[in-house]
Amino acid sequence: METIQLIGIAASIGTGISLLPQLVKIIREKKAENVSMPMLAVLFMGLVLWVIYGILKKDWIIIGSNALSLLLNACTVIFSLKYKQ
Amino acid sequence: METIQLIGIAASIGTGISLLPQLVKIIREKKAENVSMPMLAVLFMGLVLWVIYGILKKDWIIIGSNALSLLLNACTVIFSLKYKQ
Repeated sequence: METIQLIGIAASIGTGISLLPQLVKIIREKKAENVSMPMLAVLFMGLVLWVIYGILKKDWIIIGSNALSLLLNACTVIFSLKYKQ
Repeated sequence: METIQLIGIAASIGTGISLLPQLVKIIREKKAENVSMPMLAVLFMGLVLWVIYGILKKDWIIIGSNALSLLLNACTVIFSLKYKQ
């Protein structure tokens, strides 16, 4: 596998899992007042477009990492709504 | 321009500017207690890798959108540190 592909995969994993610490923090502290819902909404739309882009380009790195992000995003939205005051 | 390129550009803009509402919220409310610093750190590393990937691939959409995200991420880190208690 080429270096460029490895960098692409590492980049995908990095941005893909970045919402995980936020999700864990919200669930652990049961607080989400300072988390921006518009951020999560804009990110959701962007991620859906990335998955469509990946499907059209048949690029499994793009599809996989963005589908993972979408799942984390959806969980973050659900718990943010639950713990907003 | 092809539909696939337009979708890629729209996707880049969506995920690229998604931190903007979070940054505005932090500056306006002067509070960032519930914002996860590890999220911002993991995202930062992922974005740096995406910019490198874009440079190696000579893909200006990837470079531009991720460089914009990096800038927003850096501002969000600075203001989060400032307003954490």
